[in-house]
Amino acid sequence: MSWTISVDDIDDIARGSAVLGTGGGGDPYIGGLLAKQALREHGDVTVISLDELPDDAVVANVSMLGAPTVMVEKLPSLDSVICPVQELSEHYGKPVTHLMCIEVGGVNSTIPIAAAAALGVPLVDGDGMGRAFPELQMVLPTLYGVSASPLAYADEKGNIGVLRTINNLWGERIIRVAAIEMGCSIMLSGFHMTGELTRKALVKDSLSLCANVGRSIVAARAEKVDAVSRVVEVLGGRELFAGKVVDVERATTSGFARGRAAIAEGERTLELLFQNEHLIARVGDEVLATTPDLIMVLDHESGEPVTTEALRYGQRVRVIAAPADERWHSPAAIEMVGPRYFGYDLDPHRFDGTVRPGVPVADADTGS
Amino acid sequence: MSWTISVDDIDDIARGSAVLGTGGGGDPYIGGLLAKQALREHGDVTVISLDELPDDAVVANVSMLGAPTVMVEKLPSLDSVICPVQELSEHYGKPVTHLMCIEVGGVNSTIPIAAAAALGVPLVDGDGMGRAFPELQMVLPTLYGVSASPLAYADEKGNIGVLRTINNLWGERIIRVAAIEMGCSIMLSGFHMTGELTRKALVKDSLSLCANVGRSIVAARAEKVDAVSRVVEVLGGRELFAGKVVDVERATTSGFARGRAAIAEGERTLELLFQNEHLIARVGDEVLATTPDLIMVLDHESGEPVTTEALRYGQRVRVIAAPADERWHSPAAIEMVGPRYFGYDLDPHRFDGTVRPGVPVADADTGS
Repeated sequence: MSWTISVDDIDDIARGSAVLGTGGGGDPYIGGLLAKQALREHGDVTVISLDELPDDAVVANVSMLGAPTVMVEKLPSLDSVICPVQELSEHYGKPVTHLMCIEVGGVNSTIPIAAAAALGVPLVDGDGMGRAFPELQMVLPTLYGVSASPLAYADEKGNIGVLRTINNLWGERIIRVAAIEMGCSIMLSGFHMTGELTRKALVKDSLSLCANVGRSIVAARAEKVDAVSRVVEVLGGRELFAGKVVDVERATTSGFARGRAAIAEGERTLELLFQNEHLIARVGDEVLATTPDLIMVLDHESGEPVTTEALRYGQRVRVIAAPADERWHSPAAIEMVGPRYFGYDLDPHRFDGTVRPGVPVADADTGS
Repeated sequence: MSWTISVDDIDDIARGSAVLGTGGGGDPYIGGLLAKQALREHGDVTVISLDELPDDAVVANVSMLGAPTVMVEKLPSLDSVICPVQELSEHYGKPVTHLMCIEVGGVNSTIPIAAAAALGVPLVDGDGMGRAFPELQMVLPTLYGVSASPLAYADEKGNIGVLRTINNLWGERIIRVAAIEMGCSIMLSGFHMTGELTRKALVKDSLSLCANVGRSIVAARAEKVDAVSRVVEVLGGRELFAGKVVDVERATTSGFARGRAAIAEGERTLELLFQNEHLIARVGDEVLATTPDLIMVLDHESGEPVTTEALRYGQRVRVIAAPADERWHSPAAIEMVGPRYFGYDLDPHRFDGTVRPGVPVADADTGS
């Protein structure tokens, strides 16, 4: 079923995608601004379900790559957002007929909306992760053998490149250093796929889910019910911890925002480890959740998503988890995005699927 | 006048270009190996004078970019040498009709020969510097407003990129980090120009000069005359210093071989500062020669060129200087390649043109 995104939908989508962006994916306010501007200038965007996507569609992503720290300081221009898509069409020799989000995130769910509006093409209701991950190759299409190449990229200054790499990990390596040199944030377009392959390789309906999550937060507040519990319910997740941010260490290194945050409640302290996105949540030696499952931080009262960039000392937050797309738990996927890839000597903690909305882990778990 | 390069010419050209490469431009042995292989497989290469170049020729360079340290360890394949030229032709939409050397150097004068043989196109008798310099934008064509873009590049593994930048300095910045990530050495092709512009922007007859210098060294040895003096004579240069290498510091940082060498004779010590190429020659506070003029190190007896990579403790060497192409002394050029660009708080030392073959500076200069 197709639906339409207009200016009024952007806040919900940006909010919901920042939740599912698991701390990364960029600032929802910045991404929202750009999408609204594009929709005002160019009109609404049609979103079509994966089921309706024609087999011969030419689908490609458009996204921002870099450290979210920088994205917050630098609103990209609409021109720079569509530039890599046009470059890709030219290089590939066929126009891109449909755009997709490569991940879910405050910026990377809204930039494709802006690009779709400006280019007058529909957007598909899905994305390549069902969450956000920090590196280029970390997308479900990689598991289906889809190449990110040709990968077109552009910066604000007018520098443009096209890269063809032997695999997506090499794409990540080369594009990352280029992005750092180009100002730590670039726009890119690649992963072109037929409609047929797109239907298999993406996470279905994730743009609808973002809108739904975003709307739920606002609705819960209007209904004076707990917004965080509502999000947990919508995602089939679980609340892990509630407390106050007592420490944040964050550094932009090698083009990523890496760091850790400590959230305290009474004598217990939850440690969050992140690289753009939250990767591990643990209390002492007890691991509560790990990548590839979703670890999300929400404002205690309002339920608004808190990105890793926005974490500040003194914030009252609640940490929730939800299961990743099942395909992320395959052995090949765990090798790509499991805790060990990120340097943590941990097995992935498989989210148990139990829906326990609103129950803090301190009450729900015994022995702690 | 056109002439032909065959296998038997390669040693002379490689030797001569390593002299004019002022310490950089790669190892002549490695470059020579590749050129000989290509000539054996594909036949001789025609070299045409700039005067004969048709106005509508499509000329482009092919060269290796990276740290010479790595070039010495990794002989590129012929496929990887022609790959960026083919990529450029495709991206530009017109086949490259003539190849040029972007600089003079042991590798970067011989790789274009290999590529010209393999692609069956002529080579022009000239280059973009009349010497070697370490960075992409440091070519006379930049002074003529020639863009390095589109710039095609490739590594041994099969990763290929095309870059279009707003100026050649941005080309250097982005291509350098990509090159480092891709193994510290890549092949590239760009700077495409019409024949008309090529005639203006290149240093004329430099490939002939390389062959001439190389032949002179061998001939001098056969005639039992001093080979170094012969080179000085051919280049209209001057011998600066003769002595023993007593210290070499060298590090591959940011993709360059940077360092210094000390050469001692009696109580005087010449200090050579380099970044891939020799940039400054000084004895204490007395500056004998600086970039953009040519500073070259030759083996004391044989007159063979010694690259910055090949400098070793205990070698007996002679340091000579020769004037750079006049255009390198324009204010815009000095800003690009003068001592201050490389971080030395020195005015460029203009080579005085005096030909004093075989006279060490210790004897020729007073007050030291």
